[in-house]
Amino acid sequence: MTISVAIAGATGYAGGEILRLLLSHPLYLSGELKIGALTGHSNTGQKVGELMSHVTPLADRVIEDTTPEVLAGHDIVFLGLPHGLSAEIGKALGDNTTVIDCAADFRLKNAEDWQDFYGTEHAGTWPYGIPELPGHRQELAKSNRVAVPGCFPTTITLGALPAVAAGLIEPDLTAIAVTGVSGAGKKASVALLGAETMGNVRAYNPGGRHRHTPEIIQNLSEVTDEQVSVSFTPVLAPLSRGILATITAPLKAGVDQAQATQVYQDFYADEKFCHVLPVGQQPETHNVTGSNMVHIQVHVDERAGKLIMTAALDNLTKGTAGAAVQCMNITLGIDESMGLPQVGLAP
Amino acid sequence: MTISVAIAGATGYAGGEILRLLLSHPLYLSGELKIGALTGHSNTGQKVGELMSHVTPLADRVIEDTTPEVLAGHDIVFLGLPHGLSAEIGKALGDNTTVIDCAADFRLKNAEDWQDFYGTEHAGTWPYGIPELPGHRQELAKSNRVAVPGCFPTTITLGALPAVAAGLIEPDLTAIAVTGVSGAGKKASVALLGAETMGNVRAYNPGGRHRHTPEIIQNLSEVTDEQVSVSFTPVLAPLSRGILATITAPLKAGVDQAQATQVYQDFYADEKFCHVLPVGQQPETHNVTGSNMVHIQVHVDERAGKLIMTAALDNLTKGTAGAAVQCMNITLGIDESMGLPQVGLAP
Amino acid sequence: MTISVAIAGATGYAGGEILRLLLSHPLYLSGELKIGALTGHSNTGQKVGELMSHVTPLADRVIEDTTPEVLAGHDIVFLGLPHGLSAEIGKALGDNTTVIDCAADFRLKNAEDWQDFYGTEHAGTWPYGIPELPGHRQELAKSNRVAVPGCFPTTITLGALPAVAAGLIEPDLTAIAVTGVSGAGKKASVALLGAETMGNVRAYNPGGRHRHTPEIIQNLSEVTDEQVSVSFTPVLAPLSRGILATITAPLKAGVDQAQATQVYQDFYADEKFCHVLPVGQQPETHNVTGSNMVHIQVHVDERAGKLIMTAALDNLTKGTAGAAVQCMNITLGIDESMGLPQVGLAP
Amino acid sequence: MTISVAIAGATGYAGGEILRLLLSHPLYLSGELKIGALTGHSNTGQKVGELMSHVTPLADRVIEDTTPEVLAGHDIVFLGLPHGLSAEIGKALGDNTTVIDCAADFRLKNAEDWQDFYGTEHAGTWPYGIPELPGHRQELAKSNRVAVPGCFPTTITLGALPAVAAGLIEPDLTAIAVTGVSGAGKKASVALLGAETMGNVRAYNPGGRHRHTPEIIQNLSEVTDEQVSVSFTPVLAPLSRGILATITAPLKAGVDQAQATQVYQDFYADEKFCHVLPVGQQPETHNVTGSNMVHIQVHVDERAGKLIMTAALDNLTKGTAGAAVQCMNITLGIDESMGLPQVGLAP
Repeated sequence: MTISVAIAGATGYAGGEILRLLLSHPLYLSGELKIGALTGHSNTGQKVGELMSHVTPLADRVIEDTTPEVLAGHDIVFLGLPHGLSAEIGKALGDNTTVIDCAADFRLKNAEDWQDFYGTEHAGTWPYGIPELPGHRQELAKSNRVAVPGCFPTTITLGALPAVAAGLIEPDLTAIAVTGVSGAGKKASVALLGAETMGNVRAYNPGGRHRHTPEIIQNLSEVTDEQVSVSFTPVLAPLSRGILATITAPLKAGVDQAQATQVYQDFYADEKFCHVLPVGQQPETHNVTGSNMVHIQVHVDERAGKLIMTAALDNLTKGTAGAAVQCMNITLGIDESMGLPQVGLAP
Repeated sequence: MTISVAIAGATGYAGGEILRLLLSHPLYLSGELKIGALTGHSNTGQKVGELMSHVTPLADRVIEDTTPEVLAGHDIVFLGLPHGLSAEIGKALGDNTTVIDCAADFRLKNAEDWQDFYGTEHAGTWPYGIPELPGHRQELAKSNRVAVPGCFPTTITLGALPAVAAGLIEPDLTAIAVTGVSGAGKKASVALLGAETMGNVRAYNPGGRHRHTPEIIQNLSEVTDEQVSVSFTPVLAPLSRGILATITAPLKAGVDQAQATQVYQDFYADEKFCHVLPVGQQPETHNVTGSNMVHIQVHVDERAGKLIMTAALDNLTKGTAGAAVQCMNITLGIDESMGLPQVGLAP
Repeated sequence: MTISVAIAGATGYAGGEILRLLLSHPLYLSGELKIGALTGHSNTGQKVGELMSHVTPLADRVIEDTTPEVLAGHDIVFLGLPHGLSAEIGKALGDNTTVIDCAADFRLKNAEDWQDFYGTEHAGTWPYGIPELPGHRQELAKSNRVAVPGCFPTTITLGALPAVAAGLIEPDLTAIAVTGVSGAGKKASVALLGAETMGNVRAYNPGGRHRHTPEIIQNLSEVTDEQVSVSFTPVLAPLSRGILATITAPLKAGVDQAQATQVYQDFYADEKFCHVLPVGQQPETHNVTGSNMVHIQVHVDERAGKLIMTAALDNLTKGTAGAAVQCMNITLGIDESMGLPQVGLAP
Repeated sequence: MTISVAIAGATGYAGGEILRLLLSHPLYLSGELKIGALTGHSNTGQKVGELMSHVTPLADRVIEDTTPEVLAGHDIVFLGLPHGLSAEIGKALGDNTTVIDCAADFRLKNAEDWQDFYGTEHAGTWPYGIPELPGHRQELAKSNRVAVPGCFPTTITLGALPAVAAGLIEPDLTAIAVTGVSGAGKKASVALLGAETMGNVRAYNPGGRHRHTPEIIQNLSEVTDEQVSVSFTPVLAPLSRGILATITAPLKAGVDQAQATQVYQDFYADEKFCHVLPVGQQPETHNVTGSNMVHIQVHVDERAGKLIMTAALDNLTKGTAGAAVQCMNITLGIDESMGLPQVGLAP
């Protein structure tokens, strides 16, 4: 059997990272997975090597236009397109093609939330690609459509999930997520120049206006009957890859450090990509760089009556492309961890 | 008149930054301020140029030992020593010498807090060097002892002060402060190597255990009768200088964005070093690098019912050495802003 | 007396840095220097605070269009424009206005070199603003036109000048200059995004095609009768400001380390902004960041028969805006070092 | 068959990187390669997770002491020890164990060079691990001892090799190599603190005193009868991983760009890990980060009569651990590229 894979929007950061992972994937090395069409509307006709010279083995491949015709006929199509475009392409591809969408179009269930935050008509809802969320792995296994989550929602959801599910906290979360600059994508912009981002830290989209907010609330609401509130502020810092989320919430009466630690260790005991660190260690983004891991820690702040949860991942790997490949593995029915590094690129 | 200035602990980051500021200070340029003894216990006998080669004009000056004898007789002595040492030296210097201490020894009023967080006996309390805190400027003007605040307390206090004073929020604060690595000082350490800090973000001292916590609570309690609670988590990011604090607290009923903006602009209208940004702009650390400015912004998160306050400063300038020089100016009765840049070193 | 100063292209990196320096200049602080028109064609009508929020004291000033009419009538006009534009504006301003041009238009003497490297017609030659080049300080003092040098030519010229002048080397130089990203200016570009420049080092314009090459040769040829050859390769590294040049050339017979050191120390003994480091210390860019200093060192490589000269400066300060203000001071007949920091912003 | 692998000095940067590569190696994934003893003298008894928390899958493994007894009995032993120690351990292990040494002890053939640069007695010479050097692959295949090359010698050798071998240049090389800070290892040091290395660039070991100089000369002398001279200056830049070497040498008469390009493309046509970039592209360190690739480019500087060769690799991967695993693959007689990424971690 041979599986053919296409990538739409292959020349962006998500597309390049999917390629990086696939080119080391055991199915690719054994010849069972073939890389088919690589598309990118504005780069049509250029060579991969000109646009992503780190993808050395495919340097001479030519980028095609992003059309349903070019993408049709592949077993799997990854979409790394701006939102809005995914919806259109996704619908044009038939049921024989598994479509794994890295954009936001099909993540939200609530059409009103979509309209409030994205301002366009809601395209629909696809199975949501955090396999570690209860029930999702099973749903993904039966699906030929996957909405890959946003990088912040994955970090904050997995960081807070055990505490919300076990009722350690009031689900009134304050989440500050420090992110590297690759999260903003590969688009020319003065505000994202190296000279504007090195040696510089700034918040953005403050006041609860970041589009990932309703996605986080949707996820955490799946494991509690209480009303979930999230005040989310992203902070841009001078690194290329990585997110560190610090999530604070009011501790419920009687919860202590030992209990919190136990809840977290138990919750992720069987998960390969969620690692609760030993007491005394903190998640560090470079420990997960390029890997599909989330490193997680939890601390009780007794004086302030808060639980502090920290989580780190690589926004391009577990935050996007790694999650996409993990979901591909699940839809293919193979070992979920295949081709996904568990060791980060520290230092 | 000539003012003689000594610096104890001159070879650390705080000491070097005090020198940088003094060497451009109008009183130094006019010859009215002389730089006397520069001390540093473990570097006694070495030249300034070997230890701080950026301080070019004093490259040939020799570092002396840190003793009361060497420091005595100066009009002003800055202390950039590890805490514990300041108390001893500070007490040995007479009333004719103004002592400006950059360590923590004399910051806290509550001896119990001191013992809980520092584990030693409380040395006392000196006038506290945030002139922008109501009443402090007047107190500093009459004093010959100054406790320069910690860099995080300055950032978080000035960021939250108008909201607490005006009762915009419940004073139950969650403060996440992203900091550059110079805040950890000039001490050999594997965890602070370039290879461990570049491309890496991590929280530290989580769970409310950072020693700056009681100092923040002490400051904000001065402007409210309500019980102040602060859950503070510092986050280390890959830049040398700069702190960006994101402070979140429950909004009181009826407070809206326009009111919050007005309160902030009014509160700091007469302050030269506290700048509330126009709506739509965010504090960025590089905009205040090397300057004595704090840039501040405030946002209402309506859905989550929170107020989000952001503040940026340079931990070595307004966070330490700039505040020290500002306090020196006040004790000398000269223009408070003399020699203190208002323009940051962006980009 | 009041001196009025305008800046054309004020919103670029050079313009912002000139403003930073002028706002701390003693003549500005004393009220003798006034900042007049600030222009920027594409930003006409916007506020300074929106475009350069680090320039806090002028946040509410409005940017005007870059026209001769707006700029006319000032005593001094700094031009921070793309090359080509400077020539036009520069010629439209009368002799009562001193024009200090940060672009390349008037740097080269040889029209053929200009055409080879810039591809347009040569506009002419103005007095060249490296006061440390023999004879130039005197020429600048009498001039109302100044061509501020390129950042690489200043670094490499001042690094190699004593060796070429004293005949320590064959003037057959290989110069590799590592530069921060602000040198590329404030223009949206994918290749200069933070995500493309952090964690990344690359050469550019290799093969002797960088436009600063003839300028370096022109400078060094002023102090030798031998034919000067320079192979220059710039290298982009992940920092915002700073250039470190490593210049290698064949050692002439009989030259040893002691002689080389002596030549360098003697050559710059009277220069305030050129500092030859003690033996054993190396120029480091952060030691000169934000200052007008050049730090210089020289080493004999006996085995290879080469002299290795290293020089560091801040491309925006001594490399551009600091040199411009130094030249302004000279044309005004005031102390050349006024308002120009000698202490860098390390760490 | 099962291959057992031990790592001495596993807790350093080289050791951690060997682990990262082995844990994704097809032989490890298939169970044919087992990771045995992990040693680190000063960390004996600590857990892997405490010291290298990025090596998640082995977090609970305990570090043993570095002794011949602990290391004996493994099929392969990687040594990531300070030089001097390797010699001792290396000799104590028997012929049934393949020893792959990442230190310098056995790299040089000339005992005098060793003593000049390292100051101790020469331990001997082992087969040298650059398989891309003519003849070396064959020698390594028959050997049970390997001296892994230094990171700078690999970069500079592979960058200049085709030009020297084909006689495009006089072998009188000037090599400036910009390196990330991980090359200095995981040792506490003030000079290598984040605050001293971010925003900073500096040369070190200038004057031809870097210990890698004789190693580079030894390598290039293998492909020419001419006397090879190398003036090598390393430059430290603010990134964690990566080396970019810019090598300049006098062009021989008549050599043009087309010929140089052809020579380079032909020379490496069959090498999987040496990639000569298309004309117009430059090696960038982030394109090879975490991979075993060397990206190479060559340019003729006609005016200056020089050839400029640029080469980029990751100092911890192809520069150390990747080369070590490549050599392991060769000594095992398996596909040389197994487990070694060809795609770098850009952006």
